[in-house]
Order: sequence, then structure tokens, then C-alpha cells
Amino acid sequence: MDLKEEALALHKEKGGKLEMRSKVRIENQHDLALAYTPGVAYACKEIERDPSLSYVYTAKQNMVAVITDGSAVLGLGNIGPDAAIPVMEGKSILLKELAGVDSFPLCLKTQDVEEIIKTCKYLEPTLGAINLEDISAPRCVTIERRLNEEMNIPVFHDDQHGTSIIVAAAFLNIARLTKRSLKDMRVVLSGTGAAGSMVARMLKKIGVGTINAYNIQGVVDQEKYVTYDFLIQELLDDGIFDSPKTHDNTLASLLKGADAFIGVSAPNLVSKEMVASMNKDAIVFAMANPVPEISYPDAKEAGAYIVGSGRSDFPNQINNVLAFPGIFKGALSVRSKKINEEMKLAAAHAIANVIKDEELTPDYIVPSPFDKRVVEAVSKAVAEAAVETGVAQI
Amino acid sequence: MDLKEEALALHKEKGGKLEMRSKVRIENQHDLALAYTPGVAYACKEIERDPSLSYVYTAKQNMVAVITDGSAVLGLGNIGPDAAIPVMEGKSILLKELAGVDSFPLCLKTQDVEEIIKTCKYLEPTLGAINLEDISAPRCVTIERRLNEEMNIPVFHDDQHGTSIIVAAAFLNIARLTKRSLKDMRVVLSGTGAAGSMVARMLKKIGVGTINAYNIQGVVDQEKYVTYDFLIQELLDDGIFDSPKTHDNTLASLLKGADAFIGVSAPNLVSKEMVASMNKDAIVFAMANPVPEISYPDAKEAGAYIVGSGRSDFPNQINNVLAFPGIFKGALSVRSKKINEEMKLAAAHAIANVIKDEELTPDYIVPSPFDKRVVEAVSKAVAEAAVETGVAQI
Repeated sequence: MDLKEEALALHKEKGGKLEMRSKVRIENQHDLALAYTPGVAYACKEIERDPSLSYVYTAKQNMVAVITDGSAVLGLGNIGPDAAIPVMEGKSILLKELAGVDSFPLCLKTQDVEEIIKTCKYLEPTLGAINLEDISAPRCVTIERRLNEEMNIPVFHDDQHGTSIIVAAAFLNIARLTKRSLKDMRVVLSGTGAAGSMVARMLKKIGVGTINAYNIQGVVDQEKYVTYDFLIQELLDDGIFDSPKTHDNTLASLLKGADAFIGVSAPNLVSKEMVASMNKDAIVFAMANPVPEISYPDAKEAGAYIVGSGRSDFPNQINNVLAFPGIFKGALSVRSKKINEEMKLAAAHAIANVIKDEELTPDYIVPSPFDKRVVEAVSKAVAEAAVETGVAQI
Repeated sequence: MDLKEEALALHKEKGGKLEMRSKVRIENQHDLALAYTPGVAYACKEIERDPSLSYVYTAKQNMVAVITDGSAVLGLGNIGPDAAIPVMEGKSILLKELAGVDSFPLCLKTQDVEEIIKTCKYLEPTLGAINLEDISAPRCVTIERRLNEEMNIPVFHDDQHGTSIIVAAAFLNIARLTKRSLKDMRVVLSGTGAAGSMVARMLKKIGVGTINAYNIQGVVDQEKYVTYDFLIQELLDDGIFDSPKTHDNTLASLLKGADAFIGVSAPNLVSKEMVASMNKDAIVFAMANPVPEISYPDAKEAGAYIVGSGRSDFPNQINNVLAFPGIFKGALSVRSKKINEEMKLAAAHAIANVIKDEELTPDYIVPSPFDKRVVEAVSKAVAEAAVETGVAQI
């Protein structure tokens, strides 16, 4: 059976990938009297008296909704909310299997930003947190920002932050392995959507000196006569994207002499020649999926020292699974109101530090998604950062 | 430990009552490649090609959202969406434990009818059905009607239909046990909200001759100079509520010579004298909870022949648990677009017929909520009725 047949069979066999289970037995009148009427009324009255007790007497304390509008699903584009369900179920079961966090998918039949925001706000009482997923940029940024301002539970858009946290972890480990200063590095970023923009912010936060960006409009340059969406314009205005000194509006011109390439863009954008034109011991993270900007073997052959991708069949897989399960677990464990920048940074450091100095190699810069130490380290670090920054509620 | 302590301990011990579980293992890269990227994309693409395949490749096929705005929770009133969560979790686990149906609660932070309708419609892609719960009347009727018109999945408001289906089952069995004709019966109904109004409709549907209604405004009478809400006015206009021949605007005057009393109203409204004034072999269903309109012992002492209540500690418990699990199971099993009147009627007959002729007694008119035969009988009958009335999709 090929992957397609096997994957479809798996999805069909048990009718999707997730189910609900009761934590309590309902086998007789006494069980019913405790979990349902009349006993349940006591829990209701306690919460009516003090709404924060919904974290004590209900599953809210560990419950995440995985919410999408289906506008930017995987690399498949705007396939709509129905076709997005399998991905959201996948996310839900990963949260449970890797971090013990309960969740369910909600694929919304609207792509109106204000309606999505309103709907999420209406859903707050039952939820401990929201994981936004596969919403197109820059709408996803507007939605996440507004919800974080207007809701009392953490809202985390994994497409923005997941990749950025793991790339940051990778760069922290690259600095550790190579003893190079991040400050002196020039990074070329291809792709300035949800993931790319946050990768850039995170890299600047950990100390990367220069970031030049490229997207479907060409080289991103403050001086260029191009109208950027608000997300890119902000990154230029905030000094996250540096306008390159010289270029001919090609990715190739940006890559000449660059220390690192990060691709969250499109297949086969980078040639071996382009990698060869980079600085010595070049770093290449080509994360377009499933076909990267340049393959691991090609990048290596062209002289790259450290190569990563989104793929599980080559070393250094940048897989969001390393971040979001532990982040939600940590945030929920202290009833955090937000998942703030400090918490994301703490997650990056925690992921990086799972690998000891002596274990680091060019092919082992980030831990495996199945390394059981990761979730524990991330959730602990995230919870501590929440407490330290005053967003934890217990 | 008293019931309060025991119930609160149960709700606290495991952090609420429900959790999510994965149906598939995620233990290695191959598992991940099937259930998540890249394999999941094949399921997405199949659904993009044919949206009905979301019933095949996702948990939608068996997934119900239990939705409330917290405006009329149990007998506690408008306690809001946070305090309503324990009841909704209770409903969810009953769906799973009794009928194998997956579900999760959504307690909405809005009590605006149009916003609730819109939110439910946005949630359609992920859901196989919606169970509306504990929404105040007559708003709940507006919401359910609109959603049934405007959505492609069944929407069932249990407070309206659950009690009515089981009371109908009880009356079918009373006719069977006593050989009395429902046509000749005069029923007095106390309470004309969500439950009461539908009890009346259902009883007329199975052939009850006369129904006189009473509520907080007094005796319901077409000739009276009272402005009724649209729900009551409809019941008068449709001839479901019969204006009584004579009365002094008291419940006592209605009960004189009546064959049956049905209370879905308030504690202690009915005295022993009132029951004694009813017709011979009176039928009394006093379902106010936890304190009924009249207690089982008092009603019996006053001469009632058949007495039922909402309580589990007396015979003939009218418990919605007899209806909704099997109804959802049946509707989902044939991907029904609606839960229509024929399906509800089929459920009532199925519940009634679980008890054989020779088993029927005045104290055994409805089956026990834990009678395993009920869910199977109800779901089968409901599925068949869906197919027969053309609302089934498989």
C-alpha cells in the first residue's frame, strides 16, 4: 500500500481520528445523580458564585479548541473548512498523545475576520486555550492579536509561532555548536507570511544581526516602490527586516555571501550554485513542504554545513510538534491568560537545551519530535515564564 | 459524605468529566506521516473534491456539540455560560456512555438569539449534529426552528423534545395498560415553556383529546385578555391547547374531573385535595425537579392510579436520558439532515414498546434509564423514520 492508500484507510477505518471519552462511570442511578442531576447542580452553583471555579470543576482546565477557517491549509491553500478537518483532528490528537492536552477541532464556515474573532470570543467559557491553525496571512495575525487583547484565555497561532520557536532553537544550538556569534550573521529569509514574519522576529530576539527577506514580490526593501501588506511593512518599520545593501531583486543576489538561508516559501527556489555562493559553513533551513526550496543532499553537496528541512526523512527536522504540545501544556498548567513573547522564547531555549553540548552535531541541531524530554522541558519553561511575567493565574 | 460533597469531589477529582482521546497511535514517524503531514493531505484533498466525504474521513460522522447560552440551566435559571459547563459535560458523557456518540460542550458567551444562530451555523463543518440545551423559552424555539431551516445537520433541543417524547411513551403505555382511549382523555398541563409546549404537541399527535394548560399567568385561555408569548399563542391557534369550558383561573378548577395532570412547572403546586378532585384512576406526572408539583406518596394517597416524576427514587421516572442518546445515535447512523416529528414519534413508540404488555404495571409505565434495550430500540426506530421521511443521506 502506498502512503495515500494507507493514510486514507487510517482516516476511514475508525471514522476520523478522535473521540470523546467520559472520565467518570455512568452505570447506575447513583452515578447519574452525581455526574448529572441533581448532583451536577452543586458544581454549577459553585461556578456561579465564583466563575474561576470552572477551572476546578470542569474540563476547561485542560481543553483547547483547534480553530481554522480552512483558508491556508498545509500547502494546499484555501480548501475551506470541511476539507480542513483532517488536519485539525491531527493537531488535536498530537496535543493529547504528546502532551496529554484535550482538544477538539472547530472548522468555521466563515472567512470573515470580524466574524471569526467574534465566534472565538463567544466560545471562551468552555475553553482553556485556543490554537488557531491554517488561517491565511496577514488575516491570521490580525485575528490572533485581537483575540489576545480581547480574551482571557491564551490564543496561539501555531503557523506563526511554532516554526519560529523551533528555528530559534536551532539557531541557539548552531551558535553553541559553531561558537559563532548570531550578531554577526546575515540571514536570508524566503517567505514573509505567517511563519516567515515570526521567524524573523524571533531570530532578531535571540540576537541575529541582519535579516534580508524575499517573497513573491521580490526582495523586501524599504526603499522599493512596492505596497507591502501591513505585516511586512511593520517588520520593515520595526527594523526586523533589514533592507539589503545591494541586490538585483533576485533571491540569488541576496544569498551571495549570506551566512544562512531560511525558506518557508516554495519548492526548488534555491539552486546548488546559490548555496555555493553563500558564506563558508553555510546554514540552510529549507522548510517548504513536502518539496523544500533545496533538498538536503543538494544543499550538502553545494557546501552547506548545517541543513534542516520540514521533512522527517532527513536530519534536523523543523517540526512544530516540538513546540505546541508543551507550550499548551505549560500555559494550561498555570492557567496563563496569554502566551507571550517571553514564554515563546523560553520554549525555544528549552527545546535547544534538550540537546547537551557534547551531543550537538551539524546533523543533530534540534531534538526528534518523539524525544519525550521535549514536552516536559518546554511545558516547565513556559509555565515558569508565565509566572515570571505575571500572566499566570495560579 | 452527602450528595453535595460527593458530587463536588467527583467533578474536581479528575478535572471535569470528559476528555478527548485519539483513535490512532502516534508513536513514530510513520504514524505521524499517516495521521498528520504528509498523509493527512490525501484525506483533505478527497474532502475538497467531495465535501460529503468529511463524513467518511473525519469524526464528524459521530460528533455532536452540546450548545447552551446558560440562560435556563436545570432549575437554576439564567446562571450564565460558565456555570452551565458541568451540565453540558454531563450531557456529553451520557451521549457517549449510553449511545457511543462523541460530543463536547460549547457554552456561548452571548445570549443574543441572532448571534447564537450565526455561531451554530459557523460551527457546522465539524459537527454531525447539535444538541441545544438549557436555553430559555421561547428563545430556544426560535433558535431551534431557524437552525433546522438553515443548517444541513440535525439540531435537537432536548429540553423541548426529550420530556415530550418520554411523556408520549408513557401515555402510549397507559392506553395499553388501562385500555383507555387517549381521545377521551382531558389532560391538564402545568407549565407552558420549552418542555410543556412540546409535551402538548406530542400528546395531541398520539391522540390525546383535550389539553388544558396553566402557567404563571393563570389558566391559558384563548378568550382571556392576556398577551401570550408567540409559543403559547401558536399552541392556542393550532388547537393544541384547548380553552377550558369553565374555570376560576386556578389550577384547582382545571383539575376537577380531569383524567391526567402533567406538571413541568414548580414545586408543590398540586395538593392532595386537587388530585382527589380528578377523575377516577387519575394519572399524575409531576416533573418539577428536584421538588415535584406533588410527591409520589401524596399523589398515590389522594387516589392517583399512575404517578410519575423526574425523580429516580420513585417509580416511572421521566428521564430525558431515555430519549436523546438513541435519537442522536439513530440520526447520525443515517446522516439525517433533520430530526423531524416522525422521528420523535418513532422514538416515543420505541421507548413505550420496550416494555411488553404483560410487564406493564401502574409503577412500570416507562423503562429504566439503564435498560440497555432502550438506546438500541430508539436509534433503530429513529433511523428508519429518517429513511422513510427522506431526510436520511445514506
